[in-house]
Amino acid sequence: MYLIGGAVVNLVHSIKAGLSLEMPGTNGASSAEVVKAVQNGSLDEKTLDEAVKRILQIVLKTKENKKDISYSKEEQHKLAKQASIESTVLLKNEDNILPLKKQGKIAVIGEFAKTPRYQGSGSSRVNATKIDAPYDEICKTCEEKATVAFASGYNLTDDNINQNIIGEAKELAKQSDITILFAGLPDVYESEGYDRNHMHIPENQIKLINELASVTKNIIVILMNGAPIEMPWIDKTKGVLEAYLGGQAVGSAIADILFGEVSPSGKLAETFPIKLEDNPSYLNFPGEGDVVEYKEGLFVGYRYYDKKKLKPLFPFGFGLSYTNFDYKSIKVDKNELLDNESLNVTVSIKNTGSITAKEVVQLYVRDVCSSLIRPEKELKAFEKIELKPNEEKEITFTLNKRAFAYYNVDINDWYVEDGDFEILVGKSSEDILLKEKVIVKSTTSLKKTYTLNSLLGDILNDQRGKDVLADKAFADALGMFGKIDELDATMLSFIYGFPLRTIIGFSQGKMTEEMLENLLNKLNN
Amino acid sequence: MYLIGGAVVNLVHSIKAGLSLEMPGTNGASSAEVVKAVQNGSLDEKTLDEAVKRILQIVLKTKENKKDISYSKEEQHKLAKQASIESTVLLKNEDNILPLKKQGKIAVIGEFAKTPRYQGSGSSRVNATKIDAPYDEICKTCEEKATVAFASGYNLTDDNINQNIIGEAKELAKQSDITILFAGLPDVYESEGYDRNHMHIPENQIKLINELASVTKNIIVILMNGAPIEMPWIDKTKGVLEAYLGGQAVGSAIADILFGEVSPSGKLAETFPIKLEDNPSYLNFPGEGDVVEYKEGLFVGYRYYDKKKLKPLFPFGFGLSYTNFDYKSIKVDKNELLDNESLNVTVSIKNTGSITAKEVVQLYVRDVCSSLIRPEKELKAFEKIELKPNEEKEITFTLNKRAFAYYNVDINDWYVEDGDFEILVGKSSEDILLKEKVIVKSTTSLKKTYTLNSLLGDILNDQRGKDVLADKAFADALGMFGKIDELDATMLSFIYGFPLRTIIGFSQGKMTEEMLENLLNKLNN
Repeated sequence: MYLIGGAVVNLVHSIKAGLSLEMPGTNGASSAEVVKAVQNGSLDEKTLDEAVKRILQIVLKTKENKKDISYSKEEQHKLAKQASIESTVLLKNEDNILPLKKQGKIAVIGEFAKTPRYQGSGSSRVNATKIDAPYDEICKTCEEKATVAFASGYNLTDDNINQNIIGEAKELAKQSDITILFAGLPDVYESEGYDRNHMHIPENQIKLINELASVTKNIIVILMNGAPIEMPWIDKTKGVLEAYLGGQAVGSAIADILFGEVSPSGKLAETFPIKLEDNPSYLNFPGEGDVVEYKEGLFVGYRYYDKKKLKPLFPFGFGLSYTNFDYKSIKVDKNELLDNESLNVTVSIKNTGSITAKEVVQLYVRDVCSSLIRPEKELKAFEKIELKPNEEKEITFTLNKRAFAYYNVDINDWYVEDGDFEILVGKSSEDILLKEKVIVKSTTSLKKTYTLNSLLGDILNDQRGKDVLADKAFADALGMFGKIDELDATMLSFIYGFPLRTIIGFSQGKMTEEMLENLLNKLNN
Repeated sequence: MYLIGGAVVNLVHSIKAGLSLEMPGTNGASSAEVVKAVQNGSLDEKTLDEAVKRILQIVLKTKENKKDISYSKEEQHKLAKQASIESTVLLKNEDNILPLKKQGKIAVIGEFAKTPRYQGSGSSRVNATKIDAPYDEICKTCEEKATVAFASGYNLTDDNINQNIIGEAKELAKQSDITILFAGLPDVYESEGYDRNHMHIPENQIKLINELASVTKNIIVILMNGAPIEMPWIDKTKGVLEAYLGGQAVGSAIADILFGEVSPSGKLAETFPIKLEDNPSYLNFPGEGDVVEYKEGLFVGYRYYDKKKLKPLFPFGFGLSYTNFDYKSIKVDKNELLDNESLNVTVSIKNTGSITAKEVVQLYVRDVCSSLIRPEKELKAFEKIELKPNEEKEITFTLNKRAFAYYNVDINDWYVEDGDFEILVGKSSEDILLKEKVIVKSTTSLKKTYTLNSLLGDILNDQRGKDVLADKAFADALGMFGKIDELDATMLSFIYGFPLRTIIGFSQGKMTEEMLENLLNKLNN
């Protein structure tokens, strides 16, 4: 255990809990607390020794394994470019406006095209060896085949609308065949240490999009941002490419994608809601005073939009391609399994388009009927494959217990509830194309414990409970409602809602507390 | 205190807590517990005496005031009819299909027209002196001026689709000018003691609506149900009249409304969501096992749909009329007030249509900016007024502290946070037509208490906090970030998110725990 802790409140307690390295440091303030704690006996010196030993082991290991590392900046840059290409997500591609041809007049608009936002703020910040500016890379890619011109459209120092630079951009767009607009969130919008309180892009960028849309229909927006944004302007564009914070090679990656050197293959690892208010945490966030309740529970991300049937702007797992993938077939190696067996799911995918491209095939599992509140479905496996035109590949996913289980706090272990599960395979959380059903049976038996507050319906729907309540005393106790087997639907629903304890009252003296306790004992034994 | 308790779990504890009457009774079982408790000393006999005394006082008072009551069944029936008229809500009236003319061929379809559902099940059930069947009343109202014919369309004993009776109804609708279709929830769908697990009307009714829509466009649906339903079929109708469970005179009330003897004037006292999943409790209900969490908190009803900007099928407070009301003006008697003063809001409403009708004018209050999580707006007053054609009336609402306050658990009292409040007046929670702003100031001063976990931003945004932190030691402690007054927006947002306790760590030794404790004491004194 080599625990490293950020945002430590009390170092003494943290050391007792296993911490070995506090980050950020406190310039000696917290170390002084530790010394004091050892001196006054509230921290055992042995505990401190253990913590120190753990961190020293890392230090020594590092020293032992130290070697001179040589690397090629150029190779690393290529790797950065590949990472950027694979994580860029094509969100919209109306009339197949992308990929672009290297011809005609191309307007590149937006300050981000020259000053790309390629990394986040705070602890994530690194020093780039070089930075590919998208505008330069687009020029390079087009060579002399197209005329590429630039206008800043907005500045990044503030959000103020500058009608002059918007005017310039508009004039350029008007004279061009295609407008590539770089937009997104400036540095100040997103950082470690604070949260956004809205999901807009800056006013000056929104204004720019609206003005450009009045002179051209061929707008492709390239987004640079670290997290989802609202896109009330999306209908004014033909293409949207989400480049996120694409790293130092973002510019060349985007140029390659725009002009079809490679197909985009990123898929969203988060949901883009239509509006801020759609977020699962919206009603609780950022809380009151110092307190925020995480009331959304497990309904975060697609689990929320799925279950609430709330249409997002773009769903989890979504991303378009320049080619088409046909999800041809699904096979399971068994239709029924025990929870300690594994299940192989084989799907066959074919590239039916005309270019080589990658696809992220996603497998979700749905618990068809559960006694717990569960998501509609959960992502359990995915694989990225590359297919040439007309190529078809099989992928086999192996699912084990965890794919069907929930964490059961009574037994402190993962537990699978017997029943039907659906295996759903598709292009995104919303676009499920293949489906199979399996039955999974638990090898762990859970003991149901009933109480005086258990509902009659729950007991009677459990065969064991039904047997115990087949007792004559129970039938007598509910005699005022008639014979259970002969009750109409209304009365049955009514009685099913009774907590067990209410039987005494309805029994007109026929069921005593002692008799009910006896029944309860039988139920629980 | 004359407390009556339903669903008592432990009568002894309940008596100690002030209970005097347990309902329903337990046929002596719980009384025996009480006797035992007095005998073994766990219940003081005096406490029991007090409980008995309270109930005896009611018994004696009732006896003293007993008189022979005579009443006219006919008058009571008229009252029942008026209640039904005033609570029937016109939800849809495309092409002003309502009110109907007494002419042509009218089809009355649906078993509810002859066997109306006019009351709920369980404890709410009463014995009607007589029941107006809608079909009979429609015939009476039309006299000989129109041809009225009936077809059952579905039966109420089960939900099975019977193509024969649907066929008869379809044939009748085809031959008629207008189809009045009675639909809704049969008895078994709704009762005390259990909950629905979906919001559909029965399958046989949905099928009927779809089939009728294939032969006529002039469908008016009259709904009989105790609570909201989904209406995926609503586009196939021209009119929807929500009669709820309209009581024994529901038939004549509906006939009067349909043929324009009176305008409907009911407004929804609940939200009709588009689908089950839209409900605020959907993700938590009905819970797991015996436990359900009320995670929706105060966001129930319109408060949820408002705040989430989630479009309902029909919003809280909604209801159409046969006339038009013009919301002309709003005046407040002061623009600024203390929370112990009252505010008079006067609005002027005019009937600009051609018939006399009633309108429920609704006043909502919106806390423009609150440090707590509050609803978008809250209903604080409403009044139902009757206006003749061209008549204009002023209504004055008087608002007091409670209209602006929230219950503050720190002071155990209602508390108004200083600031702007909007007074919103309209026809429904979604249709706000008049607006005024007032400033309310609290006469109670709350002491803010800061802790080591308070955020720097919260402290610096409070003038008192800002003064205390103007201390040089504080500026020095944050020196590594630069001078606070000169920080850029990113850095300021970053620092505003620091809990106070983190300063020690960032201070590079310049701020000790003792110094911070001193600052905190100054903040809290």
